Amino acid sequence: MVVTGSSAVSLDNPVFKAFVTHAVIVLVKTLVMSLLTTVVRFRELAFANPEDTAGRRDKDGGQLKPVLNNPHVERVRRCHLNDLENVLPFVLIGLLYVTTSPSLASALLHFRLFTCSRLLHTVVYLMPVPQPARALTFCLGLLATLSMALSAAAACGWAV
Amino acid sequence: MVVTGSSAVSLDNPVFKAFVTHAVIVLVKTLVMSLLTTVVRFRELAFANPEDTAGRRDKDGGQLKPVLNNPHVERVRRCHLNDLENVLPFVLIGLLYVTTSPSLASALLHFRLFTCSRLLHTVVYLMPVPQPARALTFCLGLLATLSMALSAAAACGWAV
Amino acid sequence: MVVTGSSAVSLDNPVFKAFVTHAVIVLVKTLVMSLLTTVVRFRELAFANPEDTAGRRDKDGGQLKPVLNNPHVERVRRCHLNDLENVLPFVLIGLLYVTTSPSLASALLHFRLFTCSRLLHTVVYLMPVPQPARALTFCLGLLATLSMALSAAAACGWAV
Repeated sequence: MVVTGSSAVSLDNPVFKAFVTHAVIVLVKTLVMSLLTTVVRFRELAFANPEDTAGRRDKDGGQLKPVLNNPHVERVRRCHLNDLENVLPFVLIGLLYVTTSPSLASALLHFRLFTCSRLLHTVVYLMPVPQPARALTFCLGLLATLSMALSAAAACGWAV
Repeated sequence: MVVTGSSAVSLDNPVFKAFVTHAVIVLVKTLVMSLLTTVVRFRELAFANPEDTAGRRDKDGGQLKPVLNNPHVERVRRCHLNDLENVLPFVLIGLLYVTTSPSLASALLHFRLFTCSRLLHTVVYLMPVPQPARALTFCLGLLATLSMALSAAAACGWAV
Repeated sequence: MVVTGSSAVSLDNPVFKAFVTHAVIVLVKTLVMSLLTTVVRFRELAFANPEDTAGRRDKDGGQLKPVLNNPHVERVRRCHLNDLENVLPFVLIGLLYVTTSPSLASALLHFRLFTCSRLLHTVVYLMPVPQPARALTFCLGLLATLSMALSAAAACGWAV
């Protein structure tokens, strides 16, 4: 069944239902990176702001000072930023792609490829696994997004 | 009145109208952070690029050089990045949530909680107000977004 | 022809078709910044993570170390972050704006102004062209987005 036009963004459309679920998974994963950053900041006692360190003692008993270059914190932050760079465009492009009535099989392939590759990307980045593991998971997700983007624009006849 | 399916993304749907207004408020607030960064860069004479400092004099009359670690500028930038991390997922998840036909009361509760907590978050971050004020405003906004995310995915039966 | 309500997000709506194409152009442009960052990292041998430098030699034949402050890499990254700050809100606000049934002429004006100004912004930032070129391209894009935001919220009667 192909759902067209105005009813594409609707729970009657199985493509849209699958999109919502995948979008929620990758967006919640991205949001959780904020909490993970906070956990690592506490573990490393590496806070970014003076009001965060106020009243806290460092390991030598002195007043804790803000730290902006802790490698463990910065790794989580780079992973988070990479999510913002890739997950947010995926959700936006995915939504536009859904409105162009792709087949359910093709849509599921794109959504599943992206979601799996980004979940793997986070694991690989945080462990970390040696390269080219991270480059590979990154590229797979990017390919899925670019494929949906070109498909959506083509369905619109590249009307500018 | 519950609006379902294809007509959810429509000005006929009061949930959608409320969503548009809240989304505009938090997105414009986020965009304004760029302008605020620029204002603070001029006040502190802390520009990031050589082409921004070209022809400008520092306080001693010498050629102004780029500065990447001014604490006032970096505070505004961290606040801006925190908005990107939270406001953009809110708008994406909120849009998906609207299509799942929540009750107007429940939707307004989520939208208002998020919008108020993020406006407060900015005030608290920029003043700054001592912790745990910022952590509290951050968590309230995050909870509103996560609640909408889980509600939307559940309405889709977690179809993956 | 003015398309209203539930059929606004549909390929039957020429405003929506034009929006999809412009959104794809600016989002793909933003995604490509990731690849450009990688190209410049290889050219400058300036990688962010120890697993990226493992087994690589620097110019003197020693073990390559992570570099977080290469000016060429950081310029591309600032340009990329500026895209995230502006392109993602444009697509979100543009989508809401489309649902409020703007005239095709007005919509095209906003979309084209934004897309052209952001493409120019990237060229100006990366060359770089002396100021105020970058400030001008930045402001034009921001104005287009703000105008759509206010228009969309007004169409919803600022319902909060």
